[in-house]
Amino acid sequence: MTLLCPSHASMSSHAKMASPTETERCIESLIAVFQRYAGRDSNNFTLSKTEFLTFMNTELAAFTKNQKDPGVLDRMMKKLDLNSDGQLDFQEFLNLIGGLALACHDTFKRSQKFV
Amino acid sequence: MTLLCPSHASMSSHAKMASPTETERCIESLIAVFQRYAGRDSNNFTLSKTEFLTFMNTELAAFTKNQKDPGVLDRMMKKLDLNSDGQLDFQEFLNLIGGLALACHDTFKRSQKFV
Repeated sequence: MTLLCPSHASMSSHAKMASPTETERCIESLIAVFQRYAGRDSNNFTLSKTEFLTFMNTELAAFTKNQKDPGVLDRMMKKLDLNSDGQLDFQEFLNLIGGLALACHDTFKRSQKFV
Repeated sequence: MTLLCPSHASMSSHAKMASPTETERCIESLIAVFQRYAGRDSNNFTLSKTEFLTFMNTELAAFTKNQKDPGVLDRMMKKLDLNSDGQLDFQEFLNLIGGLALACHDTFKRSQKFV
């Protein structure tokens, strides 16, 4: 996917010249949020189980507190941790965000069919 | 990935009670931006080639205008269009955003190693 990559520098210099677009802000947010939670222990580039739980209970509390099954976060961590190293790297974190966005979009699409 | 899905309703009701978190805003932005560009022709749930080009030249202009190769957007569309139907659905659009975010994050990680 390197074909698709703008350099971080070019995004930043654009931001200095003009307000970032909604998509640029979103990409920057995804990186910033991941870094914020991944940076809580000695490994700054992955989410440990504890960091993942803190992220879920803080950033996605509206989702987490609606879950009746207490094991749901454990199962999510296992499902997202594709290489089973007990940590979530940025790609695995993006799969979580993508999965949530896709599920929300599907709900939106279904609601549009009944309008 | 339905395991990971908060209902759109629960996100909205949370937003009424409290400000959305940065992650919730980001997920809502991804859906809103996709809908804004996908809704320009009769098929509201996919990006046509024209809609994709409008999206890239508006939302990611800082990236697009730095490309010296005029064929890069054509090749990106082909690469992203996994089922080769000439359209990008929301999942294919998320692959684009994920690829860009990952590339930016890799640049950030490399820069951190030299600090």
